[in-house]
Amino acid sequence: MNALDKRKIIIDTDPGIDDAVAIAIALFDETLDVKLITTVAGNVDVEKTTNNALKLVEFFGKDVPVAKGVKKPLVLELEDASEIHGKSGLDGYEFKEPSRKPLEDKAILAMKKVIMESDSPITLMPIGPLTNIALLLSVYPEVKGNIQEIVLMGGSTTRGNKTPMGEFNMATDPEAADIVFRSGLSIVMCGLDLGENALLYKEDSERIRRLNKTGDMIYSLFKHYRGGSLHKGLKMYDSFAIAYIVEPEMFKTQDCYVAVETSSPLTKGCTVVDLNNYWGKKSNVKVCLGVDEDRFKEWLINAIAKCI
Amino acid sequence: MNALDKRKIIIDTDPGIDDAVAIAIALFDETLDVKLITTVAGNVDVEKTTNNALKLVEFFGKDVPVAKGVKKPLVLELEDASEIHGKSGLDGYEFKEPSRKPLEDKAILAMKKVIMESDSPITLMPIGPLTNIALLLSVYPEVKGNIQEIVLMGGSTTRGNKTPMGEFNMATDPEAADIVFRSGLSIVMCGLDLGENALLYKEDSERIRRLNKTGDMIYSLFKHYRGGSLHKGLKMYDSFAIAYIVEPEMFKTQDCYVAVETSSPLTKGCTVVDLNNYWGKKSNVKVCLGVDEDRFKEWLINAIAKCI
Amino acid sequence: MNALDKRKIIIDTDPGIDDAVAIAIALFDETLDVKLITTVAGNVDVEKTTNNALKLVEFFGKDVPVAKGVKKPLVLELEDASEIHGKSGLDGYEFKEPSRKPLEDKAILAMKKVIMESDSPITLMPIGPLTNIALLLSVYPEVKGNIQEIVLMGGSTTRGNKTPMGEFNMATDPEAADIVFRSGLSIVMCGLDLGENALLYKEDSERIRRLNKTGDMIYSLFKHYRGGSLHKGLKMYDSFAIAYIVEPEMFKTQDCYVAVETSSPLTKGCTVVDLNNYWGKKSNVKVCLGVDEDRFKEWLINAIAKCI
Amino acid sequence: MNALDKRKIIIDTDPGIDDAVAIAIALFDETLDVKLITTVAGNVDVEKTTNNALKLVEFFGKDVPVAKGVKKPLVLELEDASEIHGKSGLDGYEFKEPSRKPLEDKAILAMKKVIMESDSPITLMPIGPLTNIALLLSVYPEVKGNIQEIVLMGGSTTRGNKTPMGEFNMATDPEAADIVFRSGLSIVMCGLDLGENALLYKEDSERIRRLNKTGDMIYSLFKHYRGGSLHKGLKMYDSFAIAYIVEPEMFKTQDCYVAVETSSPLTKGCTVVDLNNYWGKKSNVKVCLGVDEDRFKEWLINAIAKCI
Repeated sequence: MNALDKRKIIIDTDPGIDDAVAIAIALFDETLDVKLITTVAGNVDVEKTTNNALKLVEFFGKDVPVAKGVKKPLVLELEDASEIHGKSGLDGYEFKEPSRKPLEDKAILAMKKVIMESDSPITLMPIGPLTNIALLLSVYPEVKGNIQEIVLMGGSTTRGNKTPMGEFNMATDPEAADIVFRSGLSIVMCGLDLGENALLYKEDSERIRRLNKTGDMIYSLFKHYRGGSLHKGLKMYDSFAIAYIVEPEMFKTQDCYVAVETSSPLTKGCTVVDLNNYWGKKSNVKVCLGVDEDRFKEWLINAIAKCI
Repeated sequence: MNALDKRKIIIDTDPGIDDAVAIAIALFDETLDVKLITTVAGNVDVEKTTNNALKLVEFFGKDVPVAKGVKKPLVLELEDASEIHGKSGLDGYEFKEPSRKPLEDKAILAMKKVIMESDSPITLMPIGPLTNIALLLSVYPEVKGNIQEIVLMGGSTTRGNKTPMGEFNMATDPEAADIVFRSGLSIVMCGLDLGENALLYKEDSERIRRLNKTGDMIYSLFKHYRGGSLHKGLKMYDSFAIAYIVEPEMFKTQDCYVAVETSSPLTKGCTVVDLNNYWGKKSNVKVCLGVDEDRFKEWLINAIAKCI
Repeated sequence: MNALDKRKIIIDTDPGIDDAVAIAIALFDETLDVKLITTVAGNVDVEKTTNNALKLVEFFGKDVPVAKGVKKPLVLELEDASEIHGKSGLDGYEFKEPSRKPLEDKAILAMKKVIMESDSPITLMPIGPLTNIALLLSVYPEVKGNIQEIVLMGGSTTRGNKTPMGEFNMATDPEAADIVFRSGLSIVMCGLDLGENALLYKEDSERIRRLNKTGDMIYSLFKHYRGGSLHKGLKMYDSFAIAYIVEPEMFKTQDCYVAVETSSPLTKGCTVVDLNNYWGKKSNVKVCLGVDEDRFKEWLINAIAKCI
Repeated sequence: MNALDKRKIIIDTDPGIDDAVAIAIALFDETLDVKLITTVAGNVDVEKTTNNALKLVEFFGKDVPVAKGVKKPLVLELEDASEIHGKSGLDGYEFKEPSRKPLEDKAILAMKKVIMESDSPITLMPIGPLTNIALLLSVYPEVKGNIQEIVLMGGSTTRGNKTPMGEFNMATDPEAADIVFRSGLSIVMCGLDLGENALLYKEDSERIRRLNKTGDMIYSLFKHYRGGSLHKGLKMYDSFAIAYIVEPEMFKTQDCYVAVETSSPLTKGCTVVDLNNYWGKKSNVKVCLGVDEDRFKEWLINAIAKCI
């Protein structure tokens, strides 16, 4: 594929173990041109997520620039998920300390430059809290004209995984999510509904391990993910976003109205997805409700096989 | 069974087609002594739900007293569900106009008298909005000492059926639900989670029709229920409450903390069920998460077979 | 004045020192017929407010029945104001233990009977949290047809006195206040705006002391009110409600839309008074914005002079 | 005064008639060094407020750079106040179209550069909605180390002027205000409480008119301000912020805990000021409760007299 025809994407991320898998796949997909990786506070603090992003880029031998984003959610204080991803955010594999440095520009300025200078529209793939994206759209609304779509990991049509009704990325920064969901941009939501559909089991992980150096690295991370619960099956949340970008036809989707709860302490961060159109409101989000499980798993393993 | 050994219950209801099934079963179960039926605004207005309760009692030839309850939710205005249950609330069968009259006492006074005068604790079975129960507990808190448990139909651990996150009974009167869930009483919640588990299909309905006069009446109602969607399977929500009272071991349950969202317009009426104990709060509700489907269906048909 | 021509009122109260003054005045006003006193949890618990009401009726030698009301706000737990009114609610005067007993009927049933049996409309004067009134209107909405108006003490157009934006009676039971303010009845709100207008100073209290036995009793209470802050001037909140009933022309009022904040922890109980009609909504409350200070004070002293 | 000793300030503004007065005074005060003017959507849209800022700088013949800020509040849509300030935001005086242009950098980047490059701490004076300031603190939290204090116009300890409880700047962007008030920076709040204290009457305006060219310009704006209500007295809100910066001792202040209501539709934008410390929380804001009226008016007229 001619470089000019590749789809241009920006990954906004808080690596994070499942982030690492999604980044690996994105960097080696021949139809994609990853223009920029931006980091956000989420799974761990932004110093660590930035360092992790640099480690990954260095591990993969790629020249994608990394820009550091915000260090806390818009309104709330950060409550990280280091109990899931380990203290560093990437516990389980010994990466070299990276020689690369982040850009001087902060994430939103770096994103703005990439988007405004691109001759074709950019796809944003946020797989952490939406703080950077909300700030980008607030400070530089002119970027909206050159954004193709936002394919995000987050939300749920049912329950959450940080609070009873709040998924981690949404509940970490509900105000940011609210800003993004109201933005008028084309949004695809890959949320918790997909996770149960496509668990990776021990045998899948073993297969991945044997693929290549990347597979071995991912396997090592998996052993520590979620307190070492590999035997129960791992949920590959962030990989759904990159999978949707590359092969959307694997997914069952529905266009509907989605609002983010920001006001109530009980339900803060709940993505209220009006699947039945009880409220008669115009759709603002394409919600992924399911994925072809077998196909996704084969796709995932093939995608990792393309890495070094 | 000796009359004195029967379990004493009060049914608070807004019939309602699935209410009719639950009432039929309760009235003919040999282990139960239905002391009182109270009515509430919900599926249709309280004049109709009261008249429907009287029609049902007359149809079954029982002497259970009926007391009329409140005509609107505590704070919100009533939005009924006549699109589900028909204009009368019991569309599809021609009941005789009842000769019975409701008690002079309003529902909460009638309930209070039954509870205070009973020599053994009373079980409350509310299968409509919780307005009457909240008012009972507010005005006559002394009844708490003689209530065994509240087995209610309502709520959900995931999505709603009136709004995206609000189940009908909870979303109709969230403030009342909040009062009941905070009451300190022993509460069992049979909610939407059970509905998908145990659909009644056309062949089940045909079987019910042939059982007896009651089966024929229920079949006629079913034909009109939910806009005549019998072919897609009917959800027997209110029957789960009476089933739990009679055979709780059919159900998979979990004790957990449940709060009712009352503040946000987006999520009002959401029952926030902390299954994972994210918040470390003390359990206040036994939540039914599933039911043995085959067993429930057999139980249901057998229970209807005991009616006239 | 012929007894039949007197204005019939029910006082709903949580005595409370300023309640005692309002009750005294009401009982001896020749134009009023106090049909019932009902008690509510507020300044102190309902056992104490009921006992205090009985003490006052006995002190005044009147035969007005007293009915005990609810012991807690609808949703919230009771946080009393015993730091203002003393542990008993009437600290500072040694009342005899009353020989009178409360009615067997609870407050809302007693109110309902008085209202439904009255041949002329009843005025409700709630000077505590609105729990009883909200329950009355919910359980017995038929009383609305025979209620002339509700003249209540509570709320504020500006700040509160229990929280920054919440006045004590409103913030103690905001859901009850919300129910009453939405009831469609004619409501007069005498709130904190009046308090600063008409402070009673030491010389006023001395004048009251010398009037009669009641004046002496009131003076004794005043010495303990608000931690003995007589020298700074006392605010006669509850007296404004009875003053408005007897001499409304002393007050500057405005009809406007008032809503009660129930959802936010920060502002719960705030009476949002749309004096400027920013929202273009229909008026539901007559709000007292000021009182003729000199005239009120003379009226108050004359009114106490009519007591024993 | 040596230029190096002057206090360095950034004005964030949405001119706006009272903004124009505050800017005039700031630009000609010999103790201040205005490093930057940034604009925000508020009284009118950001294109107009930016153009107005440029017009004012050109009118005054100053070289202060102007940077354009955001065009809408963080979450809410903009509801302007053109009914107060006229369609242009500065109706009533014919300014020349400015030859100056705004900086290429957006407001928050321009602010960040000024703050980070300054050898002494910067004072921020936001006199419009706090959107820019919230974004600055979110994107570039490193600026906090070189901010002396934020002296803002906005909020109220009592009622609002956009909604019953919401002051215009706060209610226009409550989420931004919440972010700023939680920032940990030293904040001085000059709100509606001051307005009633220091009305400018016709005779004051006439005096201002005769001072100089600036006075004449201001007089022309005043004639159109608030629908030409000069005869009733004009409130000089934004001038209080600059007055506080120059002569804080004119003001009566109190340190207390202030939270911004963001959750409830009824009270959104209310600044909940805990003057009585009901909640026992640590102070985060110095709230101006009053101003020495005569002194302020003299100060204001003298300050305008220093302009061209």
